[in-house]
Amino acid sequence: MNASNNYDLAKTEIREVLESWQHAVLSADLPSILSHYSADIVSFDAIKALQFIGRDAYAEHWKYCMGLSQGGMIFEIHELDITASSNVAFARYLCRCGCVQESGEEQMGWMRGTVCLRKLGTEWKIVHEHFSIPFDPETGATMFDAVP
Amino acid sequence: MNASNNYDLAKTEIREVLESWQHAVLSADLPSILSHYSADIVSFDAIKALQFIGRDAYAEHWKYCMGLSQGGMIFEIHELDITASSNVAFARYLCRCGCVQESGEEQMGWMRGTVCLRKLGTEWKIVHEHFSIPFDPETGATMFDAVP
Repeated sequence: MNASNNYDLAKTEIREVLESWQHAVLSADLPSILSHYSADIVSFDAIKALQFIGRDAYAEHWKYCMGLSQGGMIFEIHELDITASSNVAFARYLCRCGCVQESGEEQMGWMRGTVCLRKLGTEWKIVHEHFSIPFDPETGATMFDAVP
Repeated sequence: MNASNNYDLAKTEIREVLESWQHAVLSADLPSILSHYSADIVSFDAIKALQFIGRDAYAEHWKYCMGLSQGGMIFEIHELDITASSNVAFARYLCRCGCVQESGEEQMGWMRGTVCLRKLGTEWKIVHEHFSIPFDPETGATMFDAVP
């Protein structure tokens, strides 16, 4: 197997990791979400703080996020692009995401996601992720209505 | 030279790329800034749009950004962490950045930066970057006062 094929294999593995993570998010399955992260993950999430250092701190943040979307989360991955070597990889995508309120009303918007992974032993783990919505430099307002 | 040493070399090279890029930003040297990007870069910048696709589109955006900071840019890199293989790498950091107004007043804040690179030939190029400021989920406001 040459290097190119190895990288194709890595990209397939990473796509599976992201699909598994997405399924866990949509199922609000916190242990499964966390199983995709390394213990030393540093996350730059879209809300609340500049960074969350370590899986335990991020777990607390995930519990908070799940509390914001009692009716369930919506998380669609679009324009996914993966770059991989045999043991270091990154992916970027746009996501259409939001939550269903208890009233049934959907609150939706577009975000950007960057996911950085390392192969630790035989498994790819997310060691860094970055989610955000841009802001308008003239008003300072978060651009909840931005579209691709 | 074993794999570990190769990765240390790659990390040193990437640190030099980021320092060179930072110097170009502080010097408002657009051609030098752009020389660090691949032609097919996709950028998720902190302001204005979800994404900028390709170096030419990103160049136009950089011109706009430079127009916002006539008195010069401030861009400090903190808590830099680099992960590298021999040809794929990523880095994350917090940055204290802003601009000096023509009146001399500084407008400063903390942002998060994620930079993703590939070795193309003998040179590392930035193929993706992601800058952002988080927002407050209760008010929707951009957290310009967030601190590490």
